Amino acid sequence: MPKISSRAEIMPASPIRKLVPLAEDAQKRGNKVYFLNIGQPDIPTPPEYYEAIRKANLEVLAYSHSAGNESLRAKIAQYYTRLNLPVTTNEVIVTTGASEALLFIFMACLNPGDEIIVPQPFYANYNSFALTAGVKVVPITTYIENDFDLPAIETFESLITPKTKAILICNPGNPTGILYSLKALEKLRDIVVKHDLYLIADEVYREFAYDGHKHHSVFSLSNLEEKAIVVDSISKRFSACGARIGCVVTHNKEVLNAIMKYAQARLSPPTMGQIGAEAVYDLPPSFYEKIITEYSERRNFLLGELQKMEGVLCPEVNGAFYAMVKLPVDDAEKFCRWMLESFSYKGATVMMAPANGFYADPSLGKDEVRIAYVLKKENLAAAMECLAEGLKVYPGRTIPVGEKAMSSK
Amino acid sequence: MPKISSRAEIMPASPIRKLVPLAEDAQKRGNKVYFLNIGQPDIPTPPEYYEAIRKANLEVLAYSHSAGNESLRAKIAQYYTRLNLPVTTNEVIVTTGASEALLFIFMACLNPGDEIIVPQPFYANYNSFALTAGVKVVPITTYIENDFDLPAIETFESLITPKTKAILICNPGNPTGILYSLKALEKLRDIVVKHDLYLIADEVYREFAYDGHKHHSVFSLSNLEEKAIVVDSISKRFSACGARIGCVVTHNKEVLNAIMKYAQARLSPPTMGQIGAEAVYDLPPSFYEKIITEYSERRNFLLGELQKMEGVLCPEVNGAFYAMVKLPVDDAEKFCRWMLESFSYKGATVMMAPANGFYADPSLGKDEVRIAYVLKKENLAAAMECLAEGLKVYPGRTIPVGEKAMSSK
Repeated sequence: MPKISSRAEIMPASPIRKLVPLAEDAQKRGNKVYFLNIGQPDIPTPPEYYEAIRKANLEVLAYSHSAGNESLRAKIAQYYTRLNLPVTTNEVIVTTGASEALLFIFMACLNPGDEIIVPQPFYANYNSFALTAGVKVVPITTYIENDFDLPAIETFESLITPKTKAILICNPGNPTGILYSLKALEKLRDIVVKHDLYLIADEVYREFAYDGHKHHSVFSLSNLEEKAIVVDSISKRFSACGARIGCVVTHNKEVLNAIMKYAQARLSPPTMGQIGAEAVYDLPPSFYEKIITEYSERRNFLLGELQKMEGVLCPEVNGAFYAMVKLPVDDAEKFCRWMLESFSYKGATVMMAPANGFYADPSLGKDEVRIAYVLKKENLAAAMECLAEGLKVYPGRTIPVGEKAMSSK
Repeated sequence: MPKISSRAEIMPASPIRKLVPLAEDAQKRGNKVYFLNIGQPDIPTPPEYYEAIRKANLEVLAYSHSAGNESLRAKIAQYYTRLNLPVTTNEVIVTTGASEALLFIFMACLNPGDEIIVPQPFYANYNSFALTAGVKVVPITTYIENDFDLPAIETFESLITPKTKAILICNPGNPTGILYSLKALEKLRDIVVKHDLYLIADEVYREFAYDGHKHHSVFSLSNLEEKAIVVDSISKRFSACGARIGCVVTHNKEVLNAIMKYAQARLSPPTMGQIGAEAVYDLPPSFYEKIITEYSERRNFLLGELQKMEGVLCPEVNGAFYAMVKLPVDDAEKFCRWMLESFSYKGATVMMAPANGFYADPSLGKDEVRIAYVLKKENLAAAMECLAEGLKVYPGRTIPVGEKAMSSK
């Protein structure tokens, strides 16, 4: 039998999805599973999305333009312009989710063997797309104890080689939940300008900023111009993950032209998803306000509950809807498996994403998990109760119950 | 400014889509353009597709399983089983169109630098996906004068090197319109068995076989088992190109597991498209019969009209909805551009795909175009009239009007 490729062999399983079979087994045994492992919000998709699809009245469900329908691209450009980030229709290419946007950017901007610097922990699939494109991820470590702050310029510069082509950030951060300050972004800007690199920013969580903190897009930085490339998506903003509609936005015409070749090869993004997307980009500010209030309350609740648990450390999270959490366990992946395989409380258990899959260095994040606070408060409350109980009786617990190992902030 | 990647520079523009801006300009000048360049059928998408989407009544448009909804995968397995090609649900992975299926197969089965033998002319995007995956396409030439018959086993074997991992065919053929005989497929089977290769078959046009000719799937060949990988899609079968729903089907568990890693990285195929697809896979045989009758009539009409044109050669086409056509012109791409830029007849012109983009060897197919007979007969009639007139007055015509250069079959 012919062998599969070596690159497929080294392709890691998704830390977010690899425990799914265990969760399915737990459900088959009659347990309720609270899914905190995946950024799948329980917020209803706006009715305007479904309404637009119902009304579409197409006879032939045809391919769209490879760059996406012009009408959708115009709406996306208007959305950016309303945010005071002026963009034209031709600077937007619609993709099949932010996933495809990332792959296209890697293919169009980097050659096999080229290097991209990414603060770790990072969204695990960055590594998958880099492997697909033959690009080398060079991680720069940030620490939970330090609220995942960016390292000093010198640390970045020590990693830059002739092969370095880009820095990739996620802001607001998945999995960290952090928001980069304007100062931190200006630091990155200075590095990419000095070394002539691309600054690729995954801003799919743009609106998810709490406690009055403001999100700063890389498009708001002066002197970046053609070096800035933004990855975006309707998945989180409009709770429409299944639409598979994202986009690449950049002022760089060469990059847009290169990406168009990859876009043409795969023909077009989904037509119905584009029709729905166009409708939701028209939603008024009140839509966003409601969502942010909801997530803000969930975050406050989650952090409050985690603080009550002995030996648990969670930094202040100001953005997105994730929290990296340090647990008093021997091995977070073992713990996550154990929660699904061997534990239940009041007929339920919790699924989390083991955090070591978010680090390029496999020795890091061994006692951390990523929690997505994508469930409504009553479910989140039950999940936290369940987690607290699980932590108490888990055989690999590292500190005795009743002892507080670290102060959580 | 940082440079785009070299691989993006060598990535070819799609021969099917690269003339789109010229067509748009022609439309802006008030011309009607008959689009025979692209496999975008004008057949209405079945109402059952839209009905299923309207009825879906989802609250949250969530990610689906990365392999696709189990219910859709079961329907696809049933469809294969009805065709006497028994397949289980777990042997189907739903993809975002056949495009993604091809990319996943290349990534999972071939390493960068590995070789894949493909009869040319071939669907141009095979080359785009191969370039994306760093795989080398080794073309084996077939000739229009010879009805694009497969070369002898010895010719295949002369191309096999230690780097060869697979043979890829499209059956029924895009762009050739040919159907491989059982004997031809058995020849390929013998080669892949002897040399331990994968046989990858793009069978998205499976039902489009005319004049009582029968399509033979690679799944019907004995002794292939885990070497056979099928690429499929709902785009053509159900006239649902914009759904972006395809699949990989194989009995090879290792390949399925490897592909799942790539599938997980991009999260999921479009949710609405899967719901629509599930509905149309339930359609009765009468649905297919009607479509095939329609295309059969279009084919007969097209071949009849082409035969009347002096110096035009078109082989017998028994499958899919394409014809490769040799024209009495100096350069088919120039001719296609001229038709859009400088010619109109009765306020209309025709867009075709220059065929040299379907050959890996750029010296081949220079006087050929691919015509997709995806329009209803009255439009096809107007398009053929327009093409005939255009050929008469095109400045780069190679034989005098009134002279028959080659006998068309």
